[in-house]
Amino acid sequence: MQHRIDLNADLGEGFGQWRLGDDEALMDVITSANVACGFHAGDPSTMRRTCDTAVAKGVRIGAQVGYRDLVGFGRRDIEYAPAELTDDLLYQLGALDAFARTAGDRVRYVKPHGALYNRIVHDDVQAAAVVEAVCRYDPALPLLGLPGSAVLRIAGERGLATVPEAFADRAYTAAGTLVPRREPHAVVHDAEHVRTRSVRIARDGAVTAADGTEVRIAARSLCVHGDTPGAAALAASVRAALLEAGVAVEPFA
Amino acid sequence: MQHRIDLNADLGEGFGQWRLGDDEALMDVITSANVACGFHAGDPSTMRRTCDTAVAKGVRIGAQVGYRDLVGFGRRDIEYAPAELTDDLLYQLGALDAFARTAGDRVRYVKPHGALYNRIVHDDVQAAAVVEAVCRYDPALPLLGLPGSAVLRIAGERGLATVPEAFADRAYTAAGTLVPRREPHAVVHDAEHVRTRSVRIARDGAVTAADGTEVRIAARSLCVHGDTPGAAALAASVRAALLEAGVAVEPFA
Amino acid sequence: MQHRIDLNADLGEGFGQWRLGDDEALMDVITSANVACGFHAGDPSTMRRTCDTAVAKGVRIGAQVGYRDLVGFGRRDIEYAPAELTDDLLYQLGALDAFARTAGDRVRYVKPHGALYNRIVHDDVQAAAVVEAVCRYDPALPLLGLPGSAVLRIAGERGLATVPEAFADRAYTAAGTLVPRREPHAVVHDAEHVRTRSVRIARDGAVTAADGTEVRIAARSLCVHGDTPGAAALAASVRAALLEAGVAVEPFA
Amino acid sequence: MQHRIDLNADLGEGFGQWRLGDDEALMDVITSANVACGFHAGDPSTMRRTCDTAVAKGVRIGAQVGYRDLVGFGRRDIEYAPAELTDDLLYQLGALDAFARTAGDRVRYVKPHGALYNRIVHDDVQAAAVVEAVCRYDPALPLLGLPGSAVLRIAGERGLATVPEAFADRAYTAAGTLVPRREPHAVVHDAEHVRTRSVRIARDGAVTAADGTEVRIAARSLCVHGDTPGAAALAASVRAALLEAGVAVEPFA
Repeated sequence: MQHRIDLNADLGEGFGQWRLGDDEALMDVITSANVACGFHAGDPSTMRRTCDTAVAKGVRIGAQVGYRDLVGFGRRDIEYAPAELTDDLLYQLGALDAFARTAGDRVRYVKPHGALYNRIVHDDVQAAAVVEAVCRYDPALPLLGLPGSAVLRIAGERGLATVPEAFADRAYTAAGTLVPRREPHAVVHDAEHVRTRSVRIARDGAVTAADGTEVRIAARSLCVHGDTPGAAALAASVRAALLEAGVAVEPFA
Repeated sequence: MQHRIDLNADLGEGFGQWRLGDDEALMDVITSANVACGFHAGDPSTMRRTCDTAVAKGVRIGAQVGYRDLVGFGRRDIEYAPAELTDDLLYQLGALDAFARTAGDRVRYVKPHGALYNRIVHDDVQAAAVVEAVCRYDPALPLLGLPGSAVLRIAGERGLATVPEAFADRAYTAAGTLVPRREPHAVVHDAEHVRTRSVRIARDGAVTAADGTEVRIAARSLCVHGDTPGAAALAASVRAALLEAGVAVEPFA
Repeated sequence: MQHRIDLNADLGEGFGQWRLGDDEALMDVITSANVACGFHAGDPSTMRRTCDTAVAKGVRIGAQVGYRDLVGFGRRDIEYAPAELTDDLLYQLGALDAFARTAGDRVRYVKPHGALYNRIVHDDVQAAAVVEAVCRYDPALPLLGLPGSAVLRIAGERGLATVPEAFADRAYTAAGTLVPRREPHAVVHDAEHVRTRSVRIARDGAVTAADGTEVRIAARSLCVHGDTPGAAALAASVRAALLEAGVAVEPFA
Repeated sequence: MQHRIDLNADLGEGFGQWRLGDDEALMDVITSANVACGFHAGDPSTMRRTCDTAVAKGVRIGAQVGYRDLVGFGRRDIEYAPAELTDDLLYQLGALDAFARTAGDRVRYVKPHGALYNRIVHDDVQAAAVVEAVCRYDPALPLLGLPGSAVLRIAGERGLATVPEAFADRAYTAAGTLVPRREPHAVVHDAEHVRTRSVRIARDGAVTAADGTEVRIAARSLCVHGDTPGAAALAASVRAALLEAGVAVEPFA
């Protein structure tokens, strides 16, 4: 049986005049584009351009939904009432879908962003509010998230398809969770190391934790980045390494 | 043949803690709700509540799209590049549709708001950008606007259905246009007068202009307001007067 | 010795077209106006009008600073980095001072709003960030807050003047803290009761807690509200009751 | 008599996570920093950092005020009521001054940005609203603008100091106005040409127009840019050329 992996990345994270990341280069590398929806990043024209390019390149469009916090880039925890969080996500889903549909496709999955992503790893209330939004909008949409997270568990209970993801350049603990960013060595900078790990995750379903332990990790998607200098080139080399190792790089089913 | 008229009004024009207008009362009067979409008014939770109520009351949901200008309530002219205007409207259409659909219906028509409404009476470029947004989003959506406006002409040329509207409480010139708000007597305040005019517009397709001239006015919808004290009660009495005069109050086809 | 009390209230809490509260009526009742600064409520023109009226009526202007959260009215907890919170407050202080100064006075004190107010009762980090902003802007500005709160303690340690306040219509626990809003009887609705309590707080420095205990409360300012129907009239009657009881209603020193 | 010129540039034009321009490099080149104030660009923390750096480097702080239009970067014309424009500018002036003062200096001048800058070249109403804001905030603040513009004329009539500026890299017409950006050759790209022109403007008060005519241009400040690749290096070489030609590069009086 051939091994397969999806490559996802955050795209369309500019706002008006401001740009972030090398979207152009990433579009040739990834299979799934997490497109920002205007609440923490992204404006309508950026969303339209990003969707048009994604469709032209055969990349699938996912909704990168987040807290309403432009100045904080969605990276600050906000105490939402659950119903208001659901409403904010429905709004973003509908808005992005307008551009996905006019580009000839539609929103194919949902991946929460930033502080929301981290919060719903452990917070059942906000996690349920996210799941509620997806269920109401379209229960056929898969939800992308961290393996073992509250949100994937609740999504599964509600009957949503879930897509566990791994990170190409983030260190893991022996428990299979991410080493927090505030700790040293949280991010793997060595390019060869990033490629080797990516292949192991995709082919063997395993990664070597920071303490040397072997950890099982069942990821159907691998997250790469394009927002730092050299990041898009690294992502491209990860893709090449996967292909060379006989791993098919293709969207999750 | 029985005469028919649609009654439309602006709803969901609050933002967060702030409310505007007596939405509750209007919902029992009107047949079409122009729901603000978050750029000049309206927030996701207000949009959801407004759509839920509209569906529960059998009122049709229209997209009250506008300029991105919360502090100016969409009443200030903004020099949009046409493509950016189209994008901003697509975003709003998609966002509102998320709530219309989760409420069990969908967006049924589009009515531009405020400065945008007034601008596209005469500005072909912005009018075409509005029409473009509707064509891309769903060419089956009718566009509500002023009879004789650039936007209804261009919409017709592009194959969109158009719904000319009249205003229950606005004075008309002999040319059939609205007396500008800055002029005295631009707004008709006498309740009995408002009711009589409304019946004449709906039944006879005519209105007496400010200078006494009889003016033909082919309106398929009549706009009423709920944002001033007593406005919702006046709107209710307009509806009663229409029914008493044998005019069917029902959504445009 | 004559007893004295300051009366403070939140003002200028509209945004653009949206209004909140009966500012006009409150201005004749209070001695200190907590003016919203544009991040959770208030826009430049509202701020200017509010400052002009305050100066005309002899009411002192305080900065009602808050989180950047218009749609949540500053009532949602946000995880600010301390330095960013300090910066956001400095920005608001400077902006309001522009209007206070052009009105002929200047910002006289600082009162944090909503979720920030509640947070700095117990959170030393955000409390220190608030105190830092005031120290940097003008160490002569007093800080208004809850007696026993972290923010008043830290402000005192940094050498700021502090003004403990009581609430005319909020129930107290036997420990002298406010009964949380989510609990029943958190708000005192009976007008006569509100007046009696206000006089006792101002004259005797005491209030009867929800469980009947007598509690000492050393308040130099009393907070009244104007944002619900009848609230401004109640505030006016509180002022009248204070004067009748021989309490001088005047700004804190 | 030695020739003198001020070098001004736009700084602090990021927003949150987003950055724009090479502020670090420009700070070593210019004498006056036009700091964005949060309405079209700039957030409180960016403003604080920019002011701190400016004071540390001995660069003067000016208020780069603009329309409230983050997504449009202040480059779209907005129909402000004059009083609301004045209020929006007062708000921005006060906010920036908070950071200038805590950095140990204060706002030293005002330079409108983008669409507002262009509008007040010819629109007396908005120009007067800008002048009104400066007069109210501090009539000792100079206003930087285009020679011959409505705003400098009205500012002079109201008793403000005015600082006419020239552009190092913009082509001029025979009438001494800027060649509009939409025309070819509006921007001078040749580095040597930019340097030569800059020296002529500073030393001779003259520039060669696009049609070869010699045009008098009385500029006390020269605007350079840092927001495109290589721009900061070009600005540095302009400064070097000025010094080499014996022109003193120093703030306007």
